[in-house]
Amino acid sequence: MHKLVLIRHGESTWNLENRFTGWTDVDLTPLGLEQAVQAGRLLKAEGYDFDLCYTSVLKRATRTLWHVLDEMDRTWLPVAHSWRLNERHYGALQGLNKAETAKKFGDEQVLVWRRSYDTPPPALGDDDPRWERADRRYEKVKSEDFPRTECLKDTVARVLPFWNESMAPAIRAGKRVLVAAHGNSMRALVKYLDDISDNEIVGLNIPNGIPLVYELDTHLKPIRHYYLGDAEAAAKAAAAVAAQGRAA
Amino acid sequence: MHKLVLIRHGESTWNLENRFTGWTDVDLTPLGLEQAVQAGRLLKAEGYDFDLCYTSVLKRATRTLWHVLDEMDRTWLPVAHSWRLNERHYGALQGLNKAETAKKFGDEQVLVWRRSYDTPPPALGDDDPRWERADRRYEKVKSEDFPRTECLKDTVARVLPFWNESMAPAIRAGKRVLVAAHGNSMRALVKYLDDISDNEIVGLNIPNGIPLVYELDTHLKPIRHYYLGDAEAAAKAAAAVAAQGRAA
Repeated sequence: MHKLVLIRHGESTWNLENRFTGWTDVDLTPLGLEQAVQAGRLLKAEGYDFDLCYTSVLKRATRTLWHVLDEMDRTWLPVAHSWRLNERHYGALQGLNKAETAKKFGDEQVLVWRRSYDTPPPALGDDDPRWERADRRYEKVKSEDFPRTECLKDTVARVLPFWNESMAPAIRAGKRVLVAAHGNSMRALVKYLDDISDNEIVGLNIPNGIPLVYELDTHLKPIRHYYLGDAEAAAKAAAAVAAQGRAA
Repeated sequence: MHKLVLIRHGESTWNLENRFTGWTDVDLTPLGLEQAVQAGRLLKAEGYDFDLCYTSVLKRATRTLWHVLDEMDRTWLPVAHSWRLNERHYGALQGLNKAETAKKFGDEQVLVWRRSYDTPPPALGDDDPRWERADRRYEKVKSEDFPRTECLKDTVARVLPFWNESMAPAIRAGKRVLVAAHGNSMRALVKYLDDISDNEIVGLNIPNGIPLVYELDTHLKPIRHYYLGDAEAAAKAAAAVAAQGRAA
């Protein structure tokens, strides 16, 4: 039996400002940092330990991981970064306030962009200053793989090769893996692991900073999964995520 | 031409308490943290950038690296940890106050342990609680490689394989490398690069938190080296290191 632990980064500055973030590299808030610290303490108190960590190339996930490792006294563990674990790319909505966007385009349109499995928001153009193509961290990403916007289906499509080629072989080899990622890159993994339908996955909300444990059999099929710590607090946090982006 | 940047970790709690540290995993002081932040700002201001980072498995070096990367907005860079970049193992002196040790054994004996190239301090015994053999971070280190104490010659002998097998090939392949390490693992690299004699290397003091730049030719032979920033401040900091461990 393998244990895989996933953790969504702590609250970010744009979570707090209720803005669409996507690949924008915003940092944690003081609360987000505290959530990461608490997650690390919880993992340590519950006797978890790891051999290998994965995270995105975005600092809110990396910093969450660093704080977790710090609390676990595991700052020396190997960490692999991949753009494939980045948050879903939010295209031309990146930086916009969710409530204002809802006022402008209507709750329904925003809900489609946020919760439809296969309808991406408008794409970023070449001359948009938000277009990350020139960023050094993406220099090895092929042009055809590089998103201008993504629906969740697109995110799933770019996360899974990394799961198959890097994460799954490591877990099969007996490595205890910790993943610090984002709401939608975690949805992609959870959808695949639990074989969740396209319709259902868009309604699944993952709270910030609460370790999600998957127990996997030798074929990496889930036996069960659960959040560590206070389940009620996890449910409330997930409901808060679901409530973002309403105009009200 | 290649550029290699070495940085000794910022001030640690046991630097401040004037205790022999070695492999003891003490953290940075607030000043040490600030030194790391300043080093990161300096590297960024001077236009440095990196592809790959190396550090030890000790948190004072890792945390120094993290703060440098944070200031450079490079938290996504790959980081390789190796025990071979650890500080010189200080054997049974680990944890002892340098001045008290000098009072007890005499300035001369302590100077021999600190500054002789090939005389190690007394070794740690099996039942010494300071013996790190059972620590998870060392589980892949072979018994015959695992030190109970080290003279600088021993440190050089275990650093160089890592240079030859991992760091040098990366630099030859064009990677811009940043190394966050320790006074004596840096001495080991500097001795090798600049072909410094056994007698001279023990008198070379490396200040905390000041980037040391090596310009290397295609055969990785040094063209020149220099500290970044205020040279006078670097010299003063090195002199302060040299003055530690006097009984007075």
